[in-house]
Amino acid sequence: MVESRPDSPSTSDTAAGRLADLQLTARTAAGRQFVELAERHAEDFAARAEQHDVEGSFPFQNFKEMAQSSFLAGTVGAEYGGLGVDSLYDVMVGLSRLARGDASTAIAANMHVAGASVAGQFMRRSLAEGDEHTAAMLSALLGQVGSGAVVMCFPTTERGTDLTAPQMEATPADGGYVLNGRKIFGTISPAAQLFFPSVRIPKDGGGYLTGTAMVPGDAPGLVVEDNWDSLGMRASGSNDITFTDVRVPASHVFAVKDNYAKVGQGFATFALTANIPLIATFLGVAECATAHAAEAAGKRKGPRKRRLADRIPIQQLMAEIEIDLATCRAMLARVGQLADEFLARYETGDPLSAESNALMKETQCMKYVVNRKSIEVVDRAMIICGGGSYMSRHPLARLYRDVRAGPFMQPFAPYEALEYIGKVSLGLDPALDR
Amino acid sequence: MVESRPDSPSTSDTAAGRLADLQLTARTAAGRQFVELAERHAEDFAARAEQHDVEGSFPFQNFKEMAQSSFLAGTVGAEYGGLGVDSLYDVMVGLSRLARGDASTAIAANMHVAGASVAGQFMRRSLAEGDEHTAAMLSALLGQVGSGAVVMCFPTTERGTDLTAPQMEATPADGGYVLNGRKIFGTISPAAQLFFPSVRIPKDGGGYLTGTAMVPGDAPGLVVEDNWDSLGMRASGSNDITFTDVRVPASHVFAVKDNYAKVGQGFATFALTANIPLIATFLGVAECATAHAAEAAGKRKGPRKRRLADRIPIQQLMAEIEIDLATCRAMLARVGQLADEFLARYETGDPLSAESNALMKETQCMKYVVNRKSIEVVDRAMIICGGGSYMSRHPLARLYRDVRAGPFMQPFAPYEALEYIGKVSLGLDPALDR
Amino acid sequence: MVESRPDSPSTSDTAAGRLADLQLTARTAAGRQFVELAERHAEDFAARAEQHDVEGSFPFQNFKEMAQSSFLAGTVGAEYGGLGVDSLYDVMVGLSRLARGDASTAIAANMHVAGASVAGQFMRRSLAEGDEHTAAMLSALLGQVGSGAVVMCFPTTERGTDLTAPQMEATPADGGYVLNGRKIFGTISPAAQLFFPSVRIPKDGGGYLTGTAMVPGDAPGLVVEDNWDSLGMRASGSNDITFTDVRVPASHVFAVKDNYAKVGQGFATFALTANIPLIATFLGVAECATAHAAEAAGKRKGPRKRRLADRIPIQQLMAEIEIDLATCRAMLARVGQLADEFLARYETGDPLSAESNALMKETQCMKYVVNRKSIEVVDRAMIICGGGSYMSRHPLARLYRDVRAGPFMQPFAPYEALEYIGKVSLGLDPALDR
Amino acid sequence: MVESRPDSPSTSDTAAGRLADLQLTARTAAGRQFVELAERHAEDFAARAEQHDVEGSFPFQNFKEMAQSSFLAGTVGAEYGGLGVDSLYDVMVGLSRLARGDASTAIAANMHVAGASVAGQFMRRSLAEGDEHTAAMLSALLGQVGSGAVVMCFPTTERGTDLTAPQMEATPADGGYVLNGRKIFGTISPAAQLFFPSVRIPKDGGGYLTGTAMVPGDAPGLVVEDNWDSLGMRASGSNDITFTDVRVPASHVFAVKDNYAKVGQGFATFALTANIPLIATFLGVAECATAHAAEAAGKRKGPRKRRLADRIPIQQLMAEIEIDLATCRAMLARVGQLADEFLARYETGDPLSAESNALMKETQCMKYVVNRKSIEVVDRAMIICGGGSYMSRHPLARLYRDVRAGPFMQPFAPYEALEYIGKVSLGLDPALDR
Repeated sequence: MVESRPDSPSTSDTAAGRLADLQLTARTAAGRQFVELAERHAEDFAARAEQHDVEGSFPFQNFKEMAQSSFLAGTVGAEYGGLGVDSLYDVMVGLSRLARGDASTAIAANMHVAGASVAGQFMRRSLAEGDEHTAAMLSALLGQVGSGAVVMCFPTTERGTDLTAPQMEATPADGGYVLNGRKIFGTISPAAQLFFPSVRIPKDGGGYLTGTAMVPGDAPGLVVEDNWDSLGMRASGSNDITFTDVRVPASHVFAVKDNYAKVGQGFATFALTANIPLIATFLGVAECATAHAAEAAGKRKGPRKRRLADRIPIQQLMAEIEIDLATCRAMLARVGQLADEFLARYETGDPLSAESNALMKETQCMKYVVNRKSIEVVDRAMIICGGGSYMSRHPLARLYRDVRAGPFMQPFAPYEALEYIGKVSLGLDPALDR
Repeated sequence: MVESRPDSPSTSDTAAGRLADLQLTARTAAGRQFVELAERHAEDFAARAEQHDVEGSFPFQNFKEMAQSSFLAGTVGAEYGGLGVDSLYDVMVGLSRLARGDASTAIAANMHVAGASVAGQFMRRSLAEGDEHTAAMLSALLGQVGSGAVVMCFPTTERGTDLTAPQMEATPADGGYVLNGRKIFGTISPAAQLFFPSVRIPKDGGGYLTGTAMVPGDAPGLVVEDNWDSLGMRASGSNDITFTDVRVPASHVFAVKDNYAKVGQGFATFALTANIPLIATFLGVAECATAHAAEAAGKRKGPRKRRLADRIPIQQLMAEIEIDLATCRAMLARVGQLADEFLARYETGDPLSAESNALMKETQCMKYVVNRKSIEVVDRAMIICGGGSYMSRHPLARLYRDVRAGPFMQPFAPYEALEYIGKVSLGLDPALDR
Repeated sequence: MVESRPDSPSTSDTAAGRLADLQLTARTAAGRQFVELAERHAEDFAARAEQHDVEGSFPFQNFKEMAQSSFLAGTVGAEYGGLGVDSLYDVMVGLSRLARGDASTAIAANMHVAGASVAGQFMRRSLAEGDEHTAAMLSALLGQVGSGAVVMCFPTTERGTDLTAPQMEATPADGGYVLNGRKIFGTISPAAQLFFPSVRIPKDGGGYLTGTAMVPGDAPGLVVEDNWDSLGMRASGSNDITFTDVRVPASHVFAVKDNYAKVGQGFATFALTANIPLIATFLGVAECATAHAAEAAGKRKGPRKRRLADRIPIQQLMAEIEIDLATCRAMLARVGQLADEFLARYETGDPLSAESNALMKETQCMKYVVNRKSIEVVDRAMIICGGGSYMSRHPLARLYRDVRAGPFMQPFAPYEALEYIGKVSLGLDPALDR
Repeated sequence: MVESRPDSPSTSDTAAGRLADLQLTARTAAGRQFVELAERHAEDFAARAEQHDVEGSFPFQNFKEMAQSSFLAGTVGAEYGGLGVDSLYDVMVGLSRLARGDASTAIAANMHVAGASVAGQFMRRSLAEGDEHTAAMLSALLGQVGSGAVVMCFPTTERGTDLTAPQMEATPADGGYVLNGRKIFGTISPAAQLFFPSVRIPKDGGGYLTGTAMVPGDAPGLVVEDNWDSLGMRASGSNDITFTDVRVPASHVFAVKDNYAKVGQGFATFALTANIPLIATFLGVAECATAHAAEAAGKRKGPRKRRLADRIPIQQLMAEIEIDLATCRAMLARVGQLADEFLARYETGDPLSAESNALMKETQCMKYVVNRKSIEVVDRAMIICGGGSYMSRHPLARLYRDVRAGPFMQPFAPYEALEYIGKVSLGLDPALDR
């Protein structure tokens, strides 16, 4: 969106202005501040997005600026120096705005921002349960995150398994653990100082527990590979991360549960907090594509000198885009509201399994639609913009590649989401037959 | 949904119970009462729906019961004996529930309920503007509606024109008017005691004003034809209504505006109030179809004795249904919330044209999606239920016919909606090129 | 399509004429004669279609006229008095044409015409294999069919099982068999003099063989119920047929095979011969709907007096219809050609299982698309024709109900077709997990 | 498809073997030879496709090998040293096969191969019309092409206009012409020795004629820019080509017609010959993606160690792919057959406008579907292959970018195709309102 690119809309022009009409807006004061920061950052990041995409380089400058503005401390309480956004709805809106400027940065930032949110939830729960040790550790962590000193990475994906059954192992040794394993899609890893890989822990008598380890980025044996070379989202730094005989003290392996290979309670809570804003970034991509289409329609003329915008077929294409945006916004808004209510209801207790599954089902319905519709919006924007949008340098060529990441996002492939949704809908055990 | 039909789900069983999980719910206390009444009526009306459909007969008993329960006075203030539901969102939820039992009854009831809501809005505005004459007339009307004594019909559709340009004429005569014209799709007409046709009024020097007339059902020259013989929605009584030299006093032609053939301000307000709950009835139809599908999936077995619900392809079909329901609910919820805010903001003043168009655009996006998705839900429910659902007596055979009414609903055909949405989106005058 | 209905296209006008441009045409001389007869019959049958639909009555007069014209003997060799159409492609084209006039009559006629075709194939094979007894019986049958004296019905569907595993049983008794069972969807039954139900035959030691019985319509114990009351295809006479202790001689149970509950060789051959023209009838329905849409677009005017045809959105809707028709025609044409080659290749030997499955897979791909696209064509035609097409008397209201029969047609529900196609594609055993 | 890439299918394995089942096959002996060459080349080119894509470099070696094998002379008569393929159907099949290996090479080769075909048609017509001068020039050209000495480029696209109204001008001067203008999307230009830009020629009294110029690649003033840097089809060499005061003799501007900015007769003939095989390359891309998906499904295992192919949802995704392939093949086959008949019918005379439009309409229906379905096939293949296919080095990441070129292909954007099809369907002048 640099000035030298003739069709780039700025956020202050008419086309983008119209987007503002019924876009999603924050519901809390803290959220509004967060969203405003996101919009300001987006404008700056847009100018750098092309270069990071071409190079596949990580946008360190973006993260520096988001740390300085306290955007990265958005979900941390004001007492820790954060913005104190406690509405998941508002976090979601903010991430969708950030993604209008650079989707790679947005999905990377979300990893950290959602993680901070979960850390806060977890600390409040630890306090309520009287687990002061964990609460103190998390409190210290929140202080670091609130001050912008620490960026967190939560690598959970591995080849050949799913989120519920990590193969990376935390083996008890010398009163602590030794970690070994390889994570993939370690989004935000180049910027992170702290890593929270999911692990399995061998049980006496066989089988495994699951847990999360906390590992400083400079721990011996932890290597962030520089191997993220992808179709799109090229600036997200989603490298492989290897852990070879990495030693951690016992207190740094927490959230230990006996639910290996099961869709457990905590799954939904974490999945919602991390997933809902993540999916919202694809709305941001679609909105950015829409702005390009509206800009082109308003300026370009066809062979007979009619402005594109004045041709009914172009109006209809814009309408199909608007319908898809309205659909995505409505589904995000509803899930965001339901999730805020759900999280408030279960601040300090475990949600009922049925309720947790019902919300997870609704979230997966939303993800299914938003992933698909955002792809279709970019496609239609390319049709409106014409052959020029097939050139490498056109912003839509990048959006076309970025937006396709959506259906690969955790926890389910599209066909698995259908199976999960159907099973919950029919009152069955939602464990997939995979 | 009579007992003798083996696959009919009752609303208390598991399948229907699951529907309740994340269904739309009322946001106000009055709304909750309205929704509860709707659910109770739906259960009763479901038992009569088949017969009215077969006969094409009007469900007078349903309307008698809805008058007795005060459901028909739902949107009338408590001071007039009504339930005082002032949230359009809640009206919408109530109508979607009623439609689960009998969609014909729901679209007919909506005509009256929405009309009462508009009458209330109009009265408050008349008071604010110091028009005590109109306010008194409307106050009297609301009293009659609140007591259940009067059912209203608002015939606005005519052949060969659109809503903005009625051809039915109110010709000034003897200090009053003489009405002549033919309305079609006069839903609820068999039960109505008062008719409010839209009319045009010749202007001095040519051209027309628009207005609304109030005509008692027994006025000489007013004839409700008995000619509603349709593919579906067969019990909605959407007959032609002819007006031949019907005399009305001057005070009974009101809301006179100089906007003939223009998409004016009041258009959006009325359209929202009447349209949003109307479109919600198709969600109700889809939800009813879903309950039949869930019921069949839970009970039926295939040739190899596997329960349908245990087959992954059936789970995926149910998931596609759930995704469509989630989409419809989210879009209705968002538009309902936006409309409530809009109506509150403009209780006593004219909305800005841009804002009015933006909301109308969003509503048309919602209508486009809900009309289409509800059709697809019924289709998939038929696939799950198998060949039996192709029999005349199967409830889905009726729903298949009822649900197709959606895309015909005012004010736009689907391709016109696209043109309207696109024009608003691109900042153009939304007048259609028709 | 009676004259008094203003929008009814006649086949000679411009709209219908345009349809002729790139419609499917017969490839053989006999086929062209068959198609011409179909077109002539279609014109006559169209005039009666509405009444049979309203009444749910069987079109005996249509069958009388098709017997007189020798259309019903289309697939019978000239030596037996038939037209000698031996190209399945041409049979398919003919049935699609017949369906333009009355789809119910077309699917009923197909049952008989396809059966005659299979009987001819079977006779040639019996001769080649030296089975003179069967050849003689079939020769006699073909003589009766060729002369128009006999109409055949092949009831194969039963509740709670699939085509490969009939539950109707032929129990050996007194050197012959006793038949007991109930068939459903017995299309053409009111007109039939000979019935060929599929049966199972108990094996010594347990298990079953499959076979086909031949039963005269006046056999004691055979009852054609009068219970076909369906959403659409109301004139197809697809009644239940019950067999209670019906005695048949041993020679009247033939095609006995040891493939109970298996997708065997003969399955494909019969399925192709009966299914391909059956699916083509839905193209005919779509073509008929298109003619109505084109007619309306050419005549109707909008509120601003522009002809529908001159509005770009209507042109685009017509284009989407044309694309769907082109898709259906192309897929039918390709499968028709492949099937003609396949049947010629295996006149007297069993096809290879891989080849048989490959063609069946291709046919199911075609069925999946044609069933769906024909439904969409009717839907779009209704959008073009507007609210009038929602009236019971409008031909599109009938087509909307008729066309929905497609996805229920044997041998697979849509989700089963996907499973079958996928399994064949991936080189797996195509037996469904049902 | 190099061996070191673990998931790359070779054309000899089972997955690709299954593709062969009902793939399109040539109808003539010469065509079969052409298709075999295409398959052999495809195997070789596949090994180089990734590198050319990464670099955006032109595959000169591919063109050298296609010249040596006489593939590039496929459509040239045997008397000129070519293969003598005169069936457009067979050309189409060959190009679809070539595209399985490298789509960029296929669309570049098509430009030349189609051009040679048109040159042959044009020569035969010139002879028939007694225009010996043109015939001799074309005969010499065919000799050069037949021997593999010359590669041709036909640049026709310019910014801000459409194919019927070139802005590049051939200005009469000194008994010849001076050419000035800029062409874009000059596919195959890096390899070409002869260029045939479309031009306009000023008419006395205003207005323009259209024509085609023949310009050697080394003509002073002709510059092939090196600026093709695109999202996909990166090896097609579709550079801009500028002509600055390029002088050509009068005889090198031919096919002069008075149809500027009109959809004329020759338009269809050329469009068919060039477009049908061009669109078929996208089938090839889809088939290549399918082979990758089948390969992955057969080898990969999920978290619970079930092979992907054994999971019903994967089978259903493969079925949806098969349905799309079957659709594309059938539509290409039908249009190919119709086009062969059409071209044979009008070897030496102008086709009727109605017939020409009908076939062009059918071709645009096919293009609309094939462009879209091939995109969907690649999308589903990515779903089956999982997150690995989002990596830059995975072949599907390239196919995802290549396949999106389809909807940009001449002569119509998708929404323009709809308008064209609809106008022809409704019997209107097909000139677009652009």
